[in-house]
Amino acid sequence: MKDDKILLSYGSGGRLSQQLIKETFLPSLRNPFLEPLDDGAIVNIAGRKLVMSTDSYVVDPIFFPGGDIGTLAISGTVNDLAVMGAIPRYLSLAFIIEEGFPAKDLKKILQSIQKTSFEAGVSIVTGDTKVVQKGFADKIFINTSGVGELSDKFKMTRKISAGDKIIINGTIGDHGTTIMAQREGLTLHSTLRSDCAPLNRLIEKLGDFGDSIRLMRDPTRGGVATVLNEIVENSGHGIVVSEASLPVRPEVRGLCEILGLDPLYIANEGKVLVVAEAARAEEIISILRTDPLGQEACIIGEVTDEHPDKVAMETDFGSRRIIDMLTGEQLPRIC
Amino acid sequence: MKDDKILLSYGSGGRLSQQLIKETFLPSLRNPFLEPLDDGAIVNIAGRKLVMSTDSYVVDPIFFPGGDIGTLAISGTVNDLAVMGAIPRYLSLAFIIEEGFPAKDLKKILQSIQKTSFEAGVSIVTGDTKVVQKGFADKIFINTSGVGELSDKFKMTRKISAGDKIIINGTIGDHGTTIMAQREGLTLHSTLRSDCAPLNRLIEKLGDFGDSIRLMRDPTRGGVATVLNEIVENSGHGIVVSEASLPVRPEVRGLCEILGLDPLYIANEGKVLVVAEAARAEEIISILRTDPLGQEACIIGEVTDEHPDKVAMETDFGSRRIIDMLTGEQLPRIC
Repeated sequence: MKDDKILLSYGSGGRLSQQLIKETFLPSLRNPFLEPLDDGAIVNIAGRKLVMSTDSYVVDPIFFPGGDIGTLAISGTVNDLAVMGAIPRYLSLAFIIEEGFPAKDLKKILQSIQKTSFEAGVSIVTGDTKVVQKGFADKIFINTSGVGELSDKFKMTRKISAGDKIIINGTIGDHGTTIMAQREGLTLHSTLRSDCAPLNRLIEKLGDFGDSIRLMRDPTRGGVATVLNEIVENSGHGIVVSEASLPVRPEVRGLCEILGLDPLYIANEGKVLVVAEAARAEEIISILRTDPLGQEACIIGEVTDEHPDKVAMETDFGSRRIIDMLTGEQLPRIC
Repeated sequence: MKDDKILLSYGSGGRLSQQLIKETFLPSLRNPFLEPLDDGAIVNIAGRKLVMSTDSYVVDPIFFPGGDIGTLAISGTVNDLAVMGAIPRYLSLAFIIEEGFPAKDLKKILQSIQKTSFEAGVSIVTGDTKVVQKGFADKIFINTSGVGELSDKFKMTRKISAGDKIIINGTIGDHGTTIMAQREGLTLHSTLRSDCAPLNRLIEKLGDFGDSIRLMRDPTRGGVATVLNEIVENSGHGIVVSEASLPVRPEVRGLCEILGLDPLYIANEGKVLVVAEAARAEEIISILRTDPLGQEACIIGEVTDEHPDKVAMETDFGSRRIIDMLTGEQLPRIC
């Protein structure tokens, strides 16, 4: 670590987060499970393959259009398991609550947790509550950790080849811009809504295409740009994204223009990127579109050998520019 | 909840924590896994019985004699799995870090995590890091969640009978008083040390007595008194603890006397309470004493039918007084 203090940007999900993990965490904790730096880990237990994942949620504000910290805490961990090719089964739920937090808000969050875990078909089996003095935490932080059963339908090799298509199940930037608008008091953007939702039912529908899917990722912190960069890193292949094909809601685009941000770097909480064999891409899109969470599924780009280990954007004018992963901190506490 | 705000005492591990769980969490999240309100949950996955547990660690100070928040985060979750009769296998590790936290302290904590997980024989397989702005969290909070394989050696019925012995593996109150002394700047108590340690290797040694052990619990927040009360609650049986038999270090007793506290209510982080058939109690103690973490193992009391659902202390003078579970908050952020 070049800094002697932990900066906000170390939690961005971008390049500095990667650096913290690679230079500080991995050398201490090195083991074959942690090494792939995936959304979760595949472990062997009692002769079976399970997937484990964990996330803490520190989003601010805790209530926002489209959900709250409870919806997010369930969706986020369920999605991390689902993109690993697992069927999410059981979650743990741990609260760190600031003294004086309103009991009615806790109840509201618990209702969202209950509703979202019901939708996802997961059970919350164990929990913990810590309360810290006023001023020593910001309202409420939630950790969920999950265990899922590795589905035998997905044979994700994680090896990509030129021509593979990059598919997304809908519009990008909805979650991050909603949080940002709330925080800035830009309530005129009344149609902005977080996309946070559990994607496991949608992803299960792709089981029949399991051997054509190279990998899946959920583009949360750091956005689509960061995840695509992680996919090409040391792969020997590149990815080209077509600017014209990127699904972005007009209100998201508008807010991004006002604030000088790029939707490609903005967190999503109900989106999955699927890298699949070109021949099956259209079928995958048709299946995704049968689900309410995949209505706007489309291809946003493809794997290329033209610029190995790099992601490029083909602009509306036909030129290409390199898209790096997120550097610095765009927006703290987005999830 | 009778209060409209979450109070510190809701995180005490005592009566108000129980009330929060029973009146607020259970009605929202009710399911058969959560219902037993144990240290972890036994779940079925892929045809196998696993145990899951989660805990967030918010201890203050983060470094203390005998360990640090990292030692605690591994030991605590490993112990929760072990007392459920599981062999702990995999842990997740999630940090919430305050902006500006010293990188060297993070590295020190990671070393403790590495060392303690090595001792316990568990792998950290997945993780998460969030950074919040300065003043929005206190230094560092850690969540660990764990998965273990249910051992077939322990046939814990959780049914206790008159005459069963209550065994502990050593002295009580060491962790809580160490934290308290640090916090009050009472460094004269230089021999005070937290007992925090992973107990799974010790507990595995009890496997041969698996069918004589009714249940095991680790007396953390709320101390031995609270856990014994949880054991007798709605059981139709009582427990009597002998004051003379309670193993308490002189320095712990001394600090408790100064501060007006009772070691029975003070958190331990390397202790296990074993309720076992009387006939095997002495053998269990012999086995515990073969381990460095069980040198001072002893019987502290027994199950009785004399005062159903109550815990009583038999004093050095032969009288009995009722020992309730912890009410209010004795010491916030002990773990």
